[in-house]
Amino acid sequence: MSPAIAATNGLPVSRNEEGPSRFLLPSDYGDFQTNRLNHTPPLPSILKNPFQVVDGPPTTAAGNPNEIANLFPNLYGQPSVSLVPGQSEVKGQSLKVGVVFSGGQAPGGHNVITGIFDYLQERARGSTLYGFKGGPAGIMSCKYVKLTADLIYPYRNQGGFHMICSSRDKIETPEQLKQAEETVKKLDLDGLVIIGGDDSNTNACLLAEYFRSKNMKTQVIGCPKTIDGDLKCKDVPISFGFDTACKIYSEMIGNVMVDARSTGKYYHFIRLMGRAASHITLECALQTHPNIAIIGEEVAAKKLTMKNVTNYIADIICKRMELGFNYGVMILPEGLIDFIPEVKQLIAELNEILAHDVVDEAGMWKRKLRSHSHDLFEFLPQSIQEQLLLERDPHGNVQVVAKIETEKMLIQMVEAELDQRKQKGAYKGQFQGKPHFFGYEGRCGFPTNFDANYCNALGYATGTLLHSGKTGLISSVGNLTAPVDEWTVGGTALTSLMDVERRHGKFKPVIKKALVDLEGAPMLKFASLRDDWALKNRYLSSGPIQFLGPYANDINYTLMLELGAQFHF
Amino acid sequence: MSPAIAATNGLPVSRNEEGPSRFLLPSDYGDFQTNRLNHTPPLPSILKNPFQVVDGPPTTAAGNPNEIANLFPNLYGQPSVSLVPGQSEVKGQSLKVGVVFSGGQAPGGHNVITGIFDYLQERARGSTLYGFKGGPAGIMSCKYVKLTADLIYPYRNQGGFHMICSSRDKIETPEQLKQAEETVKKLDLDGLVIIGGDDSNTNACLLAEYFRSKNMKTQVIGCPKTIDGDLKCKDVPISFGFDTACKIYSEMIGNVMVDARSTGKYYHFIRLMGRAASHITLECALQTHPNIAIIGEEVAAKKLTMKNVTNYIADIICKRMELGFNYGVMILPEGLIDFIPEVKQLIAELNEILAHDVVDEAGMWKRKLRSHSHDLFEFLPQSIQEQLLLERDPHGNVQVVAKIETEKMLIQMVEAELDQRKQKGAYKGQFQGKPHFFGYEGRCGFPTNFDANYCNALGYATGTLLHSGKTGLISSVGNLTAPVDEWTVGGTALTSLMDVERRHGKFKPVIKKALVDLEGAPMLKFASLRDDWALKNRYLSSGPIQFLGPYANDINYTLMLELGAQFHF
Repeated sequence: MSPAIAATNGLPVSRNEEGPSRFLLPSDYGDFQTNRLNHTPPLPSILKNPFQVVDGPPTTAAGNPNEIANLFPNLYGQPSVSLVPGQSEVKGQSLKVGVVFSGGQAPGGHNVITGIFDYLQERARGSTLYGFKGGPAGIMSCKYVKLTADLIYPYRNQGGFHMICSSRDKIETPEQLKQAEETVKKLDLDGLVIIGGDDSNTNACLLAEYFRSKNMKTQVIGCPKTIDGDLKCKDVPISFGFDTACKIYSEMIGNVMVDARSTGKYYHFIRLMGRAASHITLECALQTHPNIAIIGEEVAAKKLTMKNVTNYIADIICKRMELGFNYGVMILPEGLIDFIPEVKQLIAELNEILAHDVVDEAGMWKRKLRSHSHDLFEFLPQSIQEQLLLERDPHGNVQVVAKIETEKMLIQMVEAELDQRKQKGAYKGQFQGKPHFFGYEGRCGFPTNFDANYCNALGYATGTLLHSGKTGLISSVGNLTAPVDEWTVGGTALTSLMDVERRHGKFKPVIKKALVDLEGAPMLKFASLRDDWALKNRYLSSGPIQFLGPYANDINYTLMLELGAQFHF
Repeated sequence: MSPAIAATNGLPVSRNEEGPSRFLLPSDYGDFQTNRLNHTPPLPSILKNPFQVVDGPPTTAAGNPNEIANLFPNLYGQPSVSLVPGQSEVKGQSLKVGVVFSGGQAPGGHNVITGIFDYLQERARGSTLYGFKGGPAGIMSCKYVKLTADLIYPYRNQGGFHMICSSRDKIETPEQLKQAEETVKKLDLDGLVIIGGDDSNTNACLLAEYFRSKNMKTQVIGCPKTIDGDLKCKDVPISFGFDTACKIYSEMIGNVMVDARSTGKYYHFIRLMGRAASHITLECALQTHPNIAIIGEEVAAKKLTMKNVTNYIADIICKRMELGFNYGVMILPEGLIDFIPEVKQLIAELNEILAHDVVDEAGMWKRKLRSHSHDLFEFLPQSIQEQLLLERDPHGNVQVVAKIETEKMLIQMVEAELDQRKQKGAYKGQFQGKPHFFGYEGRCGFPTNFDANYCNALGYATGTLLHSGKTGLISSVGNLTAPVDEWTVGGTALTSLMDVERRHGKFKPVIKKALVDLEGAPMLKFASLRDDWALKNRYLSSGPIQFLGPYANDINYTLMLELGAQFHF
C-alpha cells in the first residue's frame, strides 16, 4: 500500500496533456496497478512460432442465407481461417491500422489493443497503430491518436476503455459510411479493428463489405467484447470481459451470502448486469449457489407472469421458514422484466396511451388499458407505477430496463404476497428484503488472468489476420479450457454469424444475441441443483480475484461446461 | 474453479446437523475457501517463545476518573499488562472459557476464536472452549456449543460470524447480569471473551466488575472489533475488520473510477458504511483519490448546512466542467446527515410534532416547525421529505441514518442547484448522478492477511491474559507496522478507556467512539491533497485483495499514518 512510484508526492511529474483526454503515465499509479503493468500475458504457441493462415471451406449464414448473400455480395461465402504451423507467406510488410472501442466497457479491452500493437512491433516492423477516440464517432470525425509504446504501456492489463474511450454510435447510413471512407483514406489504413458486441461486429461486417465494394484496401476485423456474454458461437466460444465481471459479482454475492448467514434475518435481492441475456446471472449462480436465481430466458419460455415469479419466490421463502431459515440470497438479471410477456404488453400499451393522453388523477386513462394489462398495472407496487408513468426517454417511451429497480419491485411484491399468506396463517416469518444492484463495479475491474491472456491473444490474432490480407472476419481464439500454449487461433467469417431481421419493412443484418440455451450444459447443471440450493444453504464464496496462486488461472463455469470440460463441481 | 472437494456432487456427505445452526464442513467449500482454510497465520515471536505477563503502572480513566472509580470499584486503577520474554509463572492448568460475538460482523472474527482455541490447545491442555450462540443473548439464555478442533476448522481465515452468529443485545440490567452469572456458573467458566465494539467492550467491563464484585472466578476479556474503525486508542491501534472492509470498498470504488473515466458522463455518488465515524470514507479516499470525499466530523466541526454541502459539490462540478471533465467520483459516509446540525434539529422537531399531530395534506403541520427547520424541510427533495414523514421506527422516530439514501438525496439537491446555475449561465454541463451504497459487500469478505493475522494474535493474546488471571482488559496487539514477528502483545485496562455520559440523569460508563481526528495524520494528509484530487483525476485502483504476492501483506494508510510509519504516498 506504499506506491513505489509516488502519484501525488508533490514532485513535478511530466504530464503529456492536462484535461479529459490526457494519457495516463506509470507515475499515476499505485503499487498494484504498476505490478499488473509488468505482467506479460503468455501467447499461444501457434503465435510464437512460424505459422500459416489457412482457409477453411466456404461458409453460409446463421439464417436466411439468400438475404445475407444479397446484403453482402462481396463477402458472403468467404471462408473462415485458422492458423497452422508452417512458413508464413506474409512478407513482413508494414501496416497502417486503426482500432476503436464500441459500446460499454469490458475488462481486457486494453489488452486487445496492446496485443495488436505487439504483433505489429514484432511481425510488421515500421507499422503504425491509430486509436480512434470516443468510439465509432471518432472514425467518422477522424479524431485519433497515434499509439506508441510509451502511450499504451500504462494500460497493459488494466481495466476500462479510457485509453481511447468508447461510445455507442453506429456507422450505418450512406453519409456515415462515406465519412468512415474519408477517414481511412486520409490515414491510408490497411486495416480497421472494431472491438465490440453483436451490433458493433455487424457494423464491422457492413464496413468491410462497403470498403470491399469500393475496391478500397482497408480490411476490417472485429473482436468479441461484452460482459453480458451474449456474443458467442462455435468458433468464438466467449466474449471478453464476461469472465472478469462474473468473478467480481460473485465475490460480492459470496460476501453478501456470508453476511446473510451471519445475520440470519435478511433476504438479499441482487440485480446483476445483463440486459438481453441472463448469462451473468447463470454463471454467478454456478459460482455462488444462491437460494434463488431467476433466468430471464426461462421466464420468457415458460411465459411466466409477474404473479408467477412472485409466487415462486414467496413459496421458497415459506418453505425455508419451515426449515428455520429466515434469510436468503436471490440473484436476478437486469433485464428480467423485459423477459415477461405481460410486462412487455403493458409497456407497449402505456407507450401508446401516454403518447396521446394525459394521465388524469382520477385514473380515467387506465380504462384504455386492456383488461389483463389493467390488472397487472394495479398489481404493481405504487412506486413502480409511478416510474412507469414518469420516467420516459426522449422519445416518450417508458425506460423500463434501464431505470426500473427490479430488485426493489420484487421485494415489494413478495412482501405483499407474504403479508397475504400471513393473514391466512400460511407464513409466520418476518420478511425483510435488502436490494442491491451490482453493475458498474464489474465492468471496469482489472481483467482476470484469463481475460488478460484471451484479449492479448485476440489482439495478436487480429494482427495476423490483417497481415494476411483478410477482411470481414472476427478474431477467434479457441481451445480455451486448455493451457494458453495450446489455444487455437483464427478468424471467423462475420457473414457466417449473420441472420436478418425485418425492421420497418426492410431486411436488416444482425448477429443474433446468444441467449441462455435452456438445454445447454450450464442451464442443465443449474436446473439440476437449484432445488437443493433453494432450501439448503450451499453458498460458496469464490473470494476476490487472485492473480497469483493456484486458482489465478481458473476460468468460468459457463465456458467450461459449454466446452465440455471435465471437472468436479 | 473446480472444487477439489465436491460440495454438491450428489455423494452422500455426513452432515452434523441440518437447519440454520448447522456447522459447516470443509466439503461445503469451493477451492478458494479451502485454500484459505489451510493458511496458518504467523504468530508474533513473543507468543512463540516463553513469556511473562508484566503489570504496568496503575491506570486512571479517559475522563471523569472519580465517576469511573465509583462505577468500577473493583477494577478501577488496575494496571494494563504487556508480555515480555521470560519464564512464565503460569502453571499450565486447563481453563474453561466462553466466547461470544457482539454486534455487526467484521472480517477476521472467526480467527479471534481460532486464536483462543489454539492457545488453549497449545498452552493449556485439557481446556474447554464454549461458543455462545446468537450473541450476548446466548449467554443470558445459556445457548452454547462446545467448540472442537473439527467444528472450528472450517471457519479458519473465513469471513462472517456464522460459526456462532451474533446479536446486538446488551447485558446491563440486574436481571440480565444475574442470567449471565447463572450461565458462567453452570459452565464453571474461568473466562469469558467478548468480541465487539465500543458498547460491547463497555459491557465486558461491566460484567468483569460484576463477577469480581461477587467474588466469582470468571474473568472477562474484550476484543476490539468494528469495521467502522471507531474503537481505538494508544494501546489498541485499530479494531479488526476495518482493514478488510476498506480494501473491499476501495476495490469497488477504483473500478467505478475507471468506469467514470471511460464513460466520461456520470458523477458517481458512493455511500460507504460508517455511521458514527467517517474513518472508512477517509481511508478509502486515501486509497483511491476520489474527486470529493465528505468527512462527517469536519461537516460537524464547521457546522455546515445541507446547502453548504450541496454548494461545495456543485462548485467542484462546475470547475471540472470548465476543465472539460463531465464526470467524477464522490464518496460519503453512511452517517453523513447525522453530522449536520440543522438536520439533527429538524429531525428532533419532526419527532416531536409527528408524535402528536397528523400530517395534513395542506401542510398545516409544517407551521409548527421552527423557521430554519421549515426552510430546510422545503429545501429537501420531495422523496426525502416523504421518507422523513413515512419511515419511522417502532418508537415513532424518524429512521434517518439507517433508511435515508443520502447519496440519492445529494444527487437530487446537486441537480437542483446545477439547474439553477444553468439558468444563470454559470454551468453548461449535463449532470447525471449515479447512486451507490457499498455496505454488506464489505462486512463479510475474507479477512485480509493483516486482519487474519491480527485477529489470530488478538485471540491468542486473550488466552494469555485469561491464563495469567487477568480480567477487565481488552486484548491489545501493537507495533503493527512492523512484521508480525515483531508485534507486541498485552492487555489494556478497560476502565482506562472509560468516560461517563449523563443519560436520564444518571452517569453511564462509555468508551467514547474514536471519531476522525481533524488534526490527525490521515485527515491532514487527505486535506493537503483533496483540492488536487478535486480538479485533476488522480484516481488509484487498488484492485482486489490479494493473498499472495508482493502487496498481500500491506496495511491500510490510516494505521500507517497514525503510527507514524514512513512511506511514499
